[in-house]
Amino acid sequence: MTSNRPEAPLRKLMGPGPLDIHPRVYQALTSPVIGHLDPAYLKTLDRISESLRTVFNTQNRITHAAPGTGTSGMEACVANLIEPGDPVLVCVHGYFGDRIRQMTERQEADVTVLEGEWGEPTDPQRIESALKERPYKVIALVHAETSTGVLQPMDRIADLAKAHNAMILLDAVTSLGGIALKPDEWGVDAAYSCSQKCIGAPPGLAPVTFSERALEAASHRKHPIRSWYLDITLLDKYWGSQRVYHHTSSSTLNYGLLEALLLIEEEGLQNRHARHLRNHEALVAGIEAMGLQMLVKPEYRLPTLNTVRIPEGIDDLKIRGYLLKSFNLEIGGGLGALAGKVWRVGLMGYSSSAENVLFFLSALSRALTVQGYKTDLAAGLDAAMSLLDD
Amino acid sequence: MTSNRPEAPLRKLMGPGPLDIHPRVYQALTSPVIGHLDPAYLKTLDRISESLRTVFNTQNRITHAAPGTGTSGMEACVANLIEPGDPVLVCVHGYFGDRIRQMTERQEADVTVLEGEWGEPTDPQRIESALKERPYKVIALVHAETSTGVLQPMDRIADLAKAHNAMILLDAVTSLGGIALKPDEWGVDAAYSCSQKCIGAPPGLAPVTFSERALEAASHRKHPIRSWYLDITLLDKYWGSQRVYHHTSSSTLNYGLLEALLLIEEEGLQNRHARHLRNHEALVAGIEAMGLQMLVKPEYRLPTLNTVRIPEGIDDLKIRGYLLKSFNLEIGGGLGALAGKVWRVGLMGYSSSAENVLFFLSALSRALTVQGYKTDLAAGLDAAMSLLDD
Repeated sequence: MTSNRPEAPLRKLMGPGPLDIHPRVYQALTSPVIGHLDPAYLKTLDRISESLRTVFNTQNRITHAAPGTGTSGMEACVANLIEPGDPVLVCVHGYFGDRIRQMTERQEADVTVLEGEWGEPTDPQRIESALKERPYKVIALVHAETSTGVLQPMDRIADLAKAHNAMILLDAVTSLGGIALKPDEWGVDAAYSCSQKCIGAPPGLAPVTFSERALEAASHRKHPIRSWYLDITLLDKYWGSQRVYHHTSSSTLNYGLLEALLLIEEEGLQNRHARHLRNHEALVAGIEAMGLQMLVKPEYRLPTLNTVRIPEGIDDLKIRGYLLKSFNLEIGGGLGALAGKVWRVGLMGYSSSAENVLFFLSALSRALTVQGYKTDLAAGLDAAMSLLDD
Repeated sequence: MTSNRPEAPLRKLMGPGPLDIHPRVYQALTSPVIGHLDPAYLKTLDRISESLRTVFNTQNRITHAAPGTGTSGMEACVANLIEPGDPVLVCVHGYFGDRIRQMTERQEADVTVLEGEWGEPTDPQRIESALKERPYKVIALVHAETSTGVLQPMDRIADLAKAHNAMILLDAVTSLGGIALKPDEWGVDAAYSCSQKCIGAPPGLAPVTFSERALEAASHRKHPIRSWYLDITLLDKYWGSQRVYHHTSSSTLNYGLLEALLLIEEEGLQNRHARHLRNHEALVAGIEAMGLQMLVKPEYRLPTLNTVRIPEGIDDLKIRGYLLKSFNLEIGGGLGALAGKVWRVGLMGYSSSAENVLFFLSALSRALTVQGYKTDLAAGLDAAMSLLDD
């Protein structure tokens, strides 16, 4: 009998995610499957919450992994906080800000969009002007825009939100575990991420954190939330001390997530952030020394997701196809307005390593050479390595 | 450094799910994580669809694993098919029928509930009467009620739905892979299940199947579906030939699911159904020979989920606590109206085995003896074994 099983190749994952995961995380995935109400498993969920609070840098009681991918985390935040008719300000300067906009519109909210340049953050000045016009219940924005590689400075926006008593809904998909977050200081009421980027676990779970104010708002809605699956008042009854059955939590994914979180604890969060920054700086130094350019200005660059401009005349798909075929190397293409214009190179979690920086520079240089585009690889590796040795 | 890692004990899982999984499925979980748009991975998703079509026994093109637990599958079916104001008939004779009712009410549908006895199926006569009163867009019901162990006969209801041009929305959570389904013959427009019961994979995915009529309805809604995460028109763009990014599919869970499906193909679906039936009949024979009783009448018993009446005066929690502590054996308690009144014993997927039947009878007998309740274990094992040897 032939099972006709498709190939499951071993890639080097350096796109926007998923990324390569640590062998200990693979091992944890084979922990025995266990019941979602087993006392021993509930301790695991509590341990995950405790560790996620550290990584999120929050005191929020409701800090857990929602049972779906990062997009389910986005939907949990949007659908719980936002009711039909609510005035919401959505900052869009990339694909994921636009996804928040779409979700917010589906909630039949009264949505105002601040459209910005893809590759720039949202200017706090524009948020200030909007807030002067009228009150908003929620300001929704993206801390780390996975589509552009832009880091959104938060301090000024946090002050504005506080001054105008607006809630903040934050996308931390590409920052959690790789870049410092200060949700409590910023006054963030709902934030979400995913398991497969800087956290270093497989995809399938969405770390989320909600303030008490968010839970209060969700508990006193005028229009009940349509989603039963992502209703945080129901999820809280399972995650919290009541332990009421809601869904069959995937012990497999949660054991993997816990192992990834334990690796973060062992490394230390600040060391981890420093590692992400160092490898990013080495990659940028290499890219620039090779004569290529980054999309984002230095002050707004994400250390976790690097957007490299595709040189004039170079075919995106040919390069990525070559990298996949010749080196089993996955990098990301551009989304939306940036399709064909940038490559997205992830250095996140276990994947943020000197080895990956050097491998990527070499492989990309080779791919460009094959396409007749000459880069100075020696200079690139030299520049990168000068930042990688301790 | 101490990681303070909670224990991850090895249980024998014989509750309503998750169940024990085959070693090959554990192994598949460690297949290398891969990108959600990698050409090799897309072949895996196609292979899963192909195999799920066989297990569902359907020709539906849209047959996939939704990115969440079984409850996300329920929500995908309810939220896509049902719009505000739609007349919907929901048959409730257990906990999960009631969950469908709650979800349907959240969609602001015009809901009529047929409340039935927990432990009985819904009488088609009542559906016929309801359909004579007024038209319904959707009849929602549970094929295999996980809370009661009741199998809903479908043929008569299918005829009624056709005659009245109503869509059928079907919960197949505890039947898919263990009991024959005929969605195309019955005219089912949306059905959902989960990965961790008769399919034999870990929890985290929800096999779903939608008819073309369902996709048509979802594509021409008057009120856009609020859920972006579970919108089947968007999911279809990823699952189908367009391959538009929607969410980061969990390769880990899907590789596990595929391995479980390959095991089903190797066993043969009819053999698998026969195995579930044989082990169920052995368990029932054993239970009854020991002097205990089943909740459900023989003609409506699920072969996959056995509800055993708790004898008068016996404390549910003491028995289940003893089984977990002394034998690492998990069985389920009753939900809702049946709490404290029944045990739910799952024989599903890899867990449906002679070994588990005999182990359960012995362990339960011992637990009851410790509580001062005498059963005739020798007669129970004898009755079970007479049905287990080939």
